[in-house]
Amino acid sequence: MSETTASFRPATAADVAAIVGLLADDRLGAVREDASLPLDERYIQAFDAIERDPNQLQAVAELEGHVVGCLQLSFIPGLSFIGTWRGQIESVRIHSSMRGSGLGQQMITWAVGICRERGCGIVQLNTHQSRDDAVRFYEKLGFTNSHYGMKLSLGD
Amino acid sequence: MSETTASFRPATAADVAAIVGLLADDRLGAVREDASLPLDERYIQAFDAIERDPNQLQAVAELEGHVVGCLQLSFIPGLSFIGTWRGQIESVRIHSSMRGSGLGQQMITWAVGICRERGCGIVQLNTHQSRDDAVRFYEKLGFTNSHYGMKLSLGD
Repeated sequence: MSETTASFRPATAADVAAIVGLLADDRLGAVREDASLPLDERYIQAFDAIERDPNQLQAVAELEGHVVGCLQLSFIPGLSFIGTWRGQIESVRIHSSMRGSGLGQQMITWAVGICRERGCGIVQLNTHQSRDDAVRFYEKLGFTNSHYGMKLSLGD
Repeated sequence: MSETTASFRPATAADVAAIVGLLADDRLGAVREDASLPLDERYIQAFDAIERDPNQLQAVAELEGHVVGCLQLSFIPGLSFIGTWRGQIESVRIHSSMRGSGLGQQMITWAVGICRERGCGIVQLNTHQSRDDAVRFYEKLGFTNSHYGMKLSLGD
């Protein structure tokens, strides 16, 4: 398979199971997702919330009819930087069979282009501090590792 | 002044100049904001965009009729973590006269409570890697410094 034929598009409800499969097929995702079918209703509800919000975009990469990558974009207005919109990239995954193929670079480049079209002045993302490869990957694409991303779980 | 009398509320258009003043009164903000009056129209447009988006909340801390702190909350739906909503805290500032008073802790605790009310399972924020004090501040409040925050400027 050549990555040059991949296409990127907004996800539909029919893609959600494949996206959850990608989220779960990951060292960190494996312990926090549930890709069993029928899909947990909370995934469906979350996708509905994303679709209802014009500032959210769940996207997929498709190759020969298969979902081989995904990411979520959030477009965030803000006062900082003289009212600069931010494009935020979240939950990036590439199918295990396609890792190292250049698809990830192609998908992030596509996502940055969408952020630019939407008028964002900054694109930002978080990556787990254990993902050394990811930091180098994003640095090659021009991202600067300038911040710490801090998380607080409100789990029940 | 005692921080125990501070109140937290959604900002109104009348607060924007004070918020921009707080954003600019900061080592990093000083070089990227413009608090001169009349306020740059892009701040007004950004505040309008925040107000129009039900998943954004610009908040202020008020003490004796003065804006002494601010932050922005973004409520972000997502598929990851079995469809967990995230509350994201951005652009946190405390008036220089109030730093070290406990107001910051009070404001973040308030913000986390709002995230919980909105059904978020994770609260997240980014802080510049040069802000050592901020990392310790958030760790004391229970946040884990687990991620890197990476940024790409799309400046013209």
